Amino acid sequence: MRAVRSCLVGLVAGVLALPSLAAPVRGDEGMWVFNNLPRKQLKERYGFEPTEAWIEHVMKSSVRFNSGGSGSFVSSNGLVLTNHHVGADTLHKVSTAEHDYYKEGFLAKTPADEPKAPDLELNVLQSIEDVTARVTAAVKPEMNPGEAFLARRAVIATIEKESLDKTGLRSDVVTLYQGGQYHLYRYKKYTDIRLVWAPEFDIAFFGGDPDNFEYPRYDLDACLFRAYENDQPAKIEHFLQWNPQGAAADELVFVSGHPGKTDRLNTMDALKFQRDVRAPYVLGMLRRMEIMLQQYSQDGEEQARIAKEDLFGVQNSRKAYLGQLGGLQDPAIMARKSAAEKSLRDKVNADPRMKQAYGGAWDKIAAAKKVHRENLVRAALLEQGRGFGGNLFPMARTLVRLAAENAKPNTARLPEYSDAGRSSLELQLYSTAPIYPDLELTKLTDSLGFLAEQLGAEDPLVEKVLAGKGPAARAAELLAGTKLQDVEERKKLAAGGQGAIDASTDTLIQLAKLVDPAARAVREVMEKQVTEVERQAYAQISKALFEIEGPSRYPDATFTLRLSFGTVKGYEENGQMVAPITNMGGAFEHANKHGNKAPWELPKSWHDKRSQIGAETAFNFVSTCDIIGGNSGSPVINRKGELVGLIFDGNIQSLVGDFIYDETQNRAVSVSSAAISEALRKIYNAGALADQLGK
Amino acid sequence: MRAVRSCLVGLVAGVLALPSLAAPVRGDEGMWVFNNLPRKQLKERYGFEPTEAWIEHVMKSSVRFNSGGSGSFVSSNGLVLTNHHVGADTLHKVSTAEHDYYKEGFLAKTPADEPKAPDLELNVLQSIEDVTARVTAAVKPEMNPGEAFLARRAVIATIEKESLDKTGLRSDVVTLYQGGQYHLYRYKKYTDIRLVWAPEFDIAFFGGDPDNFEYPRYDLDACLFRAYENDQPAKIEHFLQWNPQGAAADELVFVSGHPGKTDRLNTMDALKFQRDVRAPYVLGMLRRMEIMLQQYSQDGEEQARIAKEDLFGVQNSRKAYLGQLGGLQDPAIMARKSAAEKSLRDKVNADPRMKQAYGGAWDKIAAAKKVHRENLVRAALLEQGRGFGGNLFPMARTLVRLAAENAKPNTARLPEYSDAGRSSLELQLYSTAPIYPDLELTKLTDSLGFLAEQLGAEDPLVEKVLAGKGPAARAAELLAGTKLQDVEERKKLAAGGQGAIDASTDTLIQLAKLVDPAARAVREVMEKQVTEVERQAYAQISKALFEIEGPSRYPDATFTLRLSFGTVKGYEENGQMVAPITNMGGAFEHANKHGNKAPWELPKSWHDKRSQIGAETAFNFVSTCDIIGGNSGSPVINRKGELVGLIFDGNIQSLVGDFIYDETQNRAVSVSSAAISEALRKIYNAGALADQLGK
Repeated sequence: MRAVRSCLVGLVAGVLALPSLAAPVRGDEGMWVFNNLPRKQLKERYGFEPTEAWIEHVMKSSVRFNSGGSGSFVSSNGLVLTNHHVGADTLHKVSTAEHDYYKEGFLAKTPADEPKAPDLELNVLQSIEDVTARVTAAVKPEMNPGEAFLARRAVIATIEKESLDKTGLRSDVVTLYQGGQYHLYRYKKYTDIRLVWAPEFDIAFFGGDPDNFEYPRYDLDACLFRAYENDQPAKIEHFLQWNPQGAAADELVFVSGHPGKTDRLNTMDALKFQRDVRAPYVLGMLRRMEIMLQQYSQDGEEQARIAKEDLFGVQNSRKAYLGQLGGLQDPAIMARKSAAEKSLRDKVNADPRMKQAYGGAWDKIAAAKKVHRENLVRAALLEQGRGFGGNLFPMARTLVRLAAENAKPNTARLPEYSDAGRSSLELQLYSTAPIYPDLELTKLTDSLGFLAEQLGAEDPLVEKVLAGKGPAARAAELLAGTKLQDVEERKKLAAGGQGAIDASTDTLIQLAKLVDPAARAVREVMEKQVTEVERQAYAQISKALFEIEGPSRYPDATFTLRLSFGTVKGYEENGQMVAPITNMGGAFEHANKHGNKAPWELPKSWHDKRSQIGAETAFNFVSTCDIIGGNSGSPVINRKGELVGLIFDGNIQSLVGDFIYDETQNRAVSVSSAAISEALRKIYNAGALADQLGK
Repeated sequence: MRAVRSCLVGLVAGVLALPSLAAPVRGDEGMWVFNNLPRKQLKERYGFEPTEAWIEHVMKSSVRFNSGGSGSFVSSNGLVLTNHHVGADTLHKVSTAEHDYYKEGFLAKTPADEPKAPDLELNVLQSIEDVTARVTAAVKPEMNPGEAFLARRAVIATIEKESLDKTGLRSDVVTLYQGGQYHLYRYKKYTDIRLVWAPEFDIAFFGGDPDNFEYPRYDLDACLFRAYENDQPAKIEHFLQWNPQGAAADELVFVSGHPGKTDRLNTMDALKFQRDVRAPYVLGMLRRMEIMLQQYSQDGEEQARIAKEDLFGVQNSRKAYLGQLGGLQDPAIMARKSAAEKSLRDKVNADPRMKQAYGGAWDKIAAAKKVHRENLVRAALLEQGRGFGGNLFPMARTLVRLAAENAKPNTARLPEYSDAGRSSLELQLYSTAPIYPDLELTKLTDSLGFLAEQLGAEDPLVEKVLAGKGPAARAAELLAGTKLQDVEERKKLAAGGQGAIDASTDTLIQLAKLVDPAARAVREVMEKQVTEVERQAYAQISKALFEIEGPSRYPDATFTLRLSFGTVKGYEENGQMVAPITNMGGAFEHANKHGNKAPWELPKSWHDKRSQIGAETAFNFVSTCDIIGGNSGSPVINRKGELVGLIFDGNIQSLVGDFIYDETQNRAVSVSSAAISEALRKIYNAGALADQLGK
């Protein structure tokens, strides 16, 4: 399973789309917030009662990869465990034509050999504060949706800035229950992150795209980073103890991580919009990107290396979306969702007070979805930037907007330009990650063609963007006339403010200025007529649910820290029982079964050390824990709070998890901690590193 | 370049789309009909005056592959030369998991070893008769477009039937100049076609998708079939002499083949429709198919074999469409087209009589394109069958329609069910080509999902089609309940007529019945409000052109026999001259340059015989001849009427050839006859076969 990656966040999570509330909770369902854990369920189902110390320890040991993904501290000297595919973005950025760490793996012999990630930010949750009252009070009943949107944005910016100034911690006001609650999340932030160890791509992603979202699996989808402070390995108080045996069958386990986005209680209109409009549209874009990246990769080995990580991400998203869409197109699943909605609406309508207060919410969402539908394409192309592919245009836009937003008071800015988020934004904007000119050209050419296709070649904005040229010629011209690949140039433009932007002859800066009014316009329509309307409506539905079904509910995923729980347990598929745990010897058998050909080719290191590897060592396992994209890299923890595994995937049956959880077949897939220990010691000559785990 | 292949004909040529007229002819431009050859241009540019005997000989030596593609007779004992990729459909159909002739190549040691193609029909043009007056007379001025459409269809069916009864020849009334003229083409038909020789896929398509539409090239894209009559090799009077030296630089050459479809003089509104609506839509479908087939291929080696030919076809179309769209999105090209249109319209409007007679044509086409736009998706899904993928549904539909159409008089039937076309239809319907259940399931699942996406899952027809299931479950159910994979079952249903269809419990027959009313309805809208309106309007434009610019014009391509002419000549690309002729030694260098890795891996046979191959032997060459998809397999002929080459591709600059020809860079790519001779004798131990060529 793919983490929620920054480059795809607009696709996967929908920059402007909103999640919603969930149906009655069943079994091991739920991605629980740490200040409202399912104590009753845990006690009744598992006889487990977490202490406050257990909760705090797990919370502060959990790490969010701001690039999209999860991880955990696993040593006192700053080691962070995550997936190879969560680290992939960094592995790729620190690689070159000569040293392809993403493909070949990496091991730092000493701390001095650990390469620094150019733009990786890790967040560790320190506290949660309920600020619902203050946020809600800022929105007056007489305000129209546009005014309400701006008032809420302003109070959130103020709360975040105050918290940052007071604590020095990253401070994010998070919208939960789609507007039912607002919580202030404070994170300790690490921005000096260095690579310690990664295995080869071929074992991290053994089985490749065909095996992705399948089970049984044999993947060492793991890597280790180290957090630094003041140029020294960070001293970490809360880190997970390492259990070298891994999880056992039927054991209770927990997942502490950052699920990206779910839509469990989206209304039927919202689900149908996703089914009939948005998911097909996104899939079309993903297929287009996939073919484009494949074509680019065919140009040579270095091109294949350059595009590999992008291509993997796109293929992963394509498979995930296809599974999700398959679920939405299944009338049986939709009937369950529809029945739950009807039941809730009937109860609301049966009570005159509730009917008056909440009864109109569903129709408001239906109306918002119509506006969403009309603006989906323009929003994707102009505001999410799908019409201007590559890494350079987003930088140009950021510089153009930075100058404009800086001139406004903090409370009136687009949220990503607020004072509280400034240092995170600058980490990305001044990233020293390599930019590959010919991939930029390929992406910009393709996306300008996409823009012309989607809006029509005679759309006035398209004509201005293309400036009398075809997409290929115009893309070449734009890239020949920019210097934004140079970090110093970006810093100079940022420092120069509006004057520097106005005076700039950089072609991409000029393009970003040209596009900005239209992009802002569609964003404003989406914010005021979709986001805000839905937020208010879902807040009503949320209140109705709390009144009718009680407070033990989890909010839909929002890329904030959640705790899931479940059992290590197999499942039935096509009439066969799938065993819950695979072992390392099985990897060799699985490779043989596929003729040892890519993507089932085990790396040389594994063949070389085959005789020394314990064939019975647990490799991957499944559990009933409720996860979704973004949970990749989450630690799997036992009752004692020890790390027994590492989430890296969901099975194919879990792909409908965006909107429904079904314990019979939905499974989370993990690497066993046993396999990580074994591989470090026996295959990668990294005993010294293994010795640090849990210490 | 891809031939116009049956499975993609709806995509590539647009079952319901109409081509149109061309701008002023320049240089070597033109795909000329054999009864209106460019004698003046040939004499003035090349001092060449073809005799009647030369023309008849070339015409009767030229072969149309009814599956989509061209070829030629090259021996008195029935040998037919075409491209490996034109023969691919048959190569694939006669292959099995044990013998993959498509991949590994094939050589029949004796005629007894030549495997028979299960459904291949070859056509050889015998005569052309102008029937414009009779067709036009059937359409009365007082008829509305719907009545006109039916009247024209009826008279065409009558003419074809009369001709078939009188001559026994396949008789097709062809619409030329988009309605300006109607000609009756009579073909001798061969339906017992057997495979004689094919090289390995790796040399036929050396360089694969990356090199497709590129130059220089090193491809042996050739194979040989043999036509049989009465179970004996056919005795052929007109076949081409074989020139073992191939074409020389600067030589005048001709291409005699069957270009599928061009749109050279589409009006600007029609071109913009193609640019903004149809081409993007088709590309979306192609990308979807490409990913689906790639995914299927990953399931194993046998799956890869099964899907390979489909996948190649889809990739080829995707690349061709992308090139075409690139041209349409180039404002400079569109400006040239626009200027030509303006010039013609100005001349028409300057003459009151012409203005009255022809002046309204352009607006009629614009109006038709609006209707086309509104119906494009339903027509693609329901009538062209994109919502019901695989080989079985089309058979079910044919059976359902056959029963219904047989009940009508010949003149009132859908044209593909007319008496004149019946035997060709039955050849396809009763094909013994293998049907692969899991590929059928993959395609049907994907296309039912596509149907639901495109029409919306709550469209009443979609709900009936899916019958309460998701696409995957419904596809499995449909395929479990059909016996149409059995040829005898198809014959039984066809013989049983409407009664058998009514009584059938076959799931796919029932599905075809369910869909048919809606499919026929959208077809009727397209025929009466688009096809007919455009035909009348383009006929007016055509007449205006003849009046203003004289009779020496060629009609747009219609998959009928055409003669192109040109010179073997290099061209300039990115400031470099590209030499016109490559040699066989260059293939080894090209492979080395790409690390001898797929798709640049030469077959073992080539490495084994490397020392015996004349490295200087001409391999591929380019010429200025004006060709398009469907010309694949066409013979390249010198002044003497000898075969000197075999068309197999166009360069990337030729991809705009659908609507514009530019002699500076547009090049047709051929295999030299020298390379075919050399390869047969030195590599494939087929000297005896080579000895038959031209004899």
